[in-house]
Amino acid sequence: MSRTLTAKGAATRQRIVIAAALLIRDKGASETSLDDIRAATSTSKSQLFHYFPGGRSEILVAVAEHEAAQVIQAQQPFLGDLSTWRSWQQWREAVLAHYTELGERCPLGALTSELGRSSPEARAIVTLLYDTWEAALTGGVQALTAGRSPGADASARARAILAAVQGGVVMLGATGRVGYLEQALTLALEPLRPKEC
Amino acid sequence: MSRTLTAKGAATRQRIVIAAALLIRDKGASETSLDDIRAATSTSKSQLFHYFPGGRSEILVAVAEHEAAQVIQAQQPFLGDLSTWRSWQQWREAVLAHYTELGERCPLGALTSELGRSSPEARAIVTLLYDTWEAALTGGVQALTAGRSPGADASARARAILAAVQGGVVMLGATGRVGYLEQALTLALEPLRPKEC
Repeated sequence: MSRTLTAKGAATRQRIVIAAALLIRDKGASETSLDDIRAATSTSKSQLFHYFPGGRSEILVAVAEHEAAQVIQAQQPFLGDLSTWRSWQQWREAVLAHYTELGERCPLGALTSELGRSSPEARAIVTLLYDTWEAALTGGVQALTAGRSPGADASARARAILAAVQGGVVMLGATGRVGYLEQALTLALEPLRPKEC
Repeated sequence: MSRTLTAKGAATRQRIVIAAALLIRDKGASETSLDDIRAATSTSKSQLFHYFPGGRSEILVAVAEHEAAQVIQAQQPFLGDLSTWRSWQQWREAVLAHYTELGERCPLGALTSELGRSSPEARAIVTLLYDTWEAALTGGVQALTAGRSPGADASARARAILAAVQGGVVMLGATGRVGYLEQALTLALEPLRPKEC
């Protein structure tokens, strides 16, 4: 990751990551071998090792980083501008739609499982994801509640909203019921609702 | 489970489940073979198959049911009587202490993973756990807020509290940070706080 690639090289690497991500979504991380990735990306072994000297595990890390970015991406453009109650509601709808579509599947969770949940790589990727996500939500809480009290500091509020998403998603995955996520989000956002709405 | 065992038989079966649960907590579900369980419980193969005709997978199901019961047990006696704000706070402390001690380990999660998260067995155990847990929390919300409005119906409030626990625990497991669980619980309980407190 710290090696400098040419623009063309970086594009090729990214193409491999995206193809590997699709393959892993389809087959599952544990079932995907280096040969599968090589076949799916039409690359030679030496090409793969040029871009990923660490082999399969380095590819899995890159794919997990990609999937973590997708988690944020699925919430845009709403997550990037949560300054109105309407944008918060749209964000909530986008989150619900995204996770209802995924259902029991959790591409990032499958990858961090395969990397080892408490491995430094998995932990760094998930921690960065949570921090990025929390920062966006904190900014949104501050923007929405400017000039009035949200009843708690903005980052605590953001952390609680994020935990509501994580809890709802885990419970959806375990039971197939989307109601946990819906109601957890509704109640986590409730204190932010402007009085005039 | 539906076979009728004598009291002595049921006690032996339970002894095997508890010993297997300890072993699996120690070694991990995927690493625990039938022979390991046989050795740890000092039972013969024919004894094991007498109590668990389905073999290893039936033992794993029984251990998962046991671990699900432990999840509820760890919250007692507070979960059973949430009629005062003080008991809610004690329950919150018990939950925090329990999951802080477990840290990244999640005995039930490891078992449902091994059974296959979307297997009917895993799904039934987790759904029953959530339903039991939610019913206790709903009863607590009703008892605490009798005579005043909790600002949402009691079961929605209970579901949101449960999602806060699940989300906080998942985030603790992924990052090692307990703050998510602390703050998610604080804010999920906040609407229940009696005005006089």
